[in-house]
Amino acid sequence: MTGPVQSIERAAAILRLLAGGPRRLGLGEVAASLGLAKGTAHGILRTLQHVDFVEQDPATGKYQLGAALLHLGTSYLDVNELRSRSINWADALAARSGESVRLGTPLEGKVLVVHHVFRPDDTFQTLDVGSLLPLHASSLGKVLLAYGTAPLEPALEPGLEAYTRHTLVERSRLSRALAEIRERGWADEVQEMSMGEAGIAAPIRGHGGLVVGAIGLSGQLERVCDSQGHPRSSLINLLREAARAISRDLGASRW
Amino acid sequence: MTGPVQSIERAAAILRLLAGGPRRLGLGEVAASLGLAKGTAHGILRTLQHVDFVEQDPATGKYQLGAALLHLGTSYLDVNELRSRSINWADALAARSGESVRLGTPLEGKVLVVHHVFRPDDTFQTLDVGSLLPLHASSLGKVLLAYGTAPLEPALEPGLEAYTRHTLVERSRLSRALAEIRERGWADEVQEMSMGEAGIAAPIRGHGGLVVGAIGLSGQLERVCDSQGHPRSSLINLLREAARAISRDLGASRW
Repeated sequence: MTGPVQSIERAAAILRLLAGGPRRLGLGEVAASLGLAKGTAHGILRTLQHVDFVEQDPATGKYQLGAALLHLGTSYLDVNELRSRSINWADALAARSGESVRLGTPLEGKVLVVHHVFRPDDTFQTLDVGSLLPLHASSLGKVLLAYGTAPLEPALEPGLEAYTRHTLVERSRLSRALAEIRERGWADEVQEMSMGEAGIAAPIRGHGGLVVGAIGLSGQLERVCDSQGHPRSSLINLLREAARAISRDLGASRW
Repeated sequence: MTGPVQSIERAAAILRLLAGGPRRLGLGEVAASLGLAKGTAHGILRTLQHVDFVEQDPATGKYQLGAALLHLGTSYLDVNELRSRSINWADALAARSGESVRLGTPLEGKVLVVHHVFRPDDTFQTLDVGSLLPLHASSLGKVLLAYGTAPLEPALEPGLEAYTRHTLVERSRLSRALAEIRERGWADEVQEMSMGEAGIAAPIRGHGGLVVGAIGLSGQLERVCDSQGHPRSSLINLLREAARAISRDLGASRW
């Protein structure tokens, strides 16, 4: 049994670093951030540049992510079975609900959006595919936490960020919310990430019944929720039907 | 001066392998394709799996690309200056021309589509961002070849694939076409990739005047071309205006 290859782990850490924060970094900044000697960081960066995973700005000498990653990222989407099995159901859910629909899987303590169907109207919307959402403040993330698809403990460790005054930032309140989600089979998020916005999400089960992802819809508070601030049951029903249909397509024996 | 890090080059080769062809490969297939010992390939794959660059199917044990690549790929788009400076011009070009618009940069002997604006109508279209187009059979690619942004020799080496009977597959004809593109400042592609389709593209120059990418529009033959099969001059003018405007925004002193 071979151990992990250190230089590959370091290369991945450099790419993650460039994907966050300022996104254009000099050699010294990369080396310091990861606690590497400059020579070591330089060797890794040059290799990453050679394989088009990193580009160097000719004017400033700073490093940024490279073009090969875009092709690898979209190739990941092409092979993602959760996404391919969900596309038709997600389209239908957006059409029937009138809201935007997202599919999420866990990545690095967040929710990675792997599919996004725009709300069926002519308003300006930007594609969220590839974005990361917080686990505790999105309905997709709460589903992944509730069913253990994303582990809870690492998400708690950095502290739960308050996006609005409604965000669940206390461990006890979050735990109670997750237990409720497991009991009723769907999650909601009402003004917890952005005031005036709400969303609901349901688990998608794969072969063997394990929850492999979540599907959710979201939109303006007054459309998603009734006058008491509770998600409309008509939307919950549409969402759960879509989640069950996708689970069945993925080979889940229970859904 | 440090040399390239071999394990990172091998990891990149494995990811490229998984992005092409069947996209789900067993350990033996990966090892054989890259001429690696199974133990070496296994160590790299396990590390790639550990950093979410690769996923292993629990049922078959086969490997496929992982979720972290999607986030890195979209982060690349966020930082890509060619794309960010072009978005408004590309939108305007699609609206004015009535055709779909794409932006391309070279990657691995192909054209990487870094931006794609749909044709402004309600027909079904799929997003091409992250796709690779052939250099010799797309108008974007011909621009990159004509101005040396993508080198010609490696593209010739595997032989020029004939997508239709109009594709330029002879080196001499391609060379003449590239010289003509340099002279008039734009490229066309008339039924060379797909019968009934045509496209035109123009160079985008960056700081210092070097061609850093291409912008193109494409659509049905009878809309893009006149009755003689030549691209309509009205579309060429719109395209070249957009290309010049983006070049100016990128700091090119000549455009």
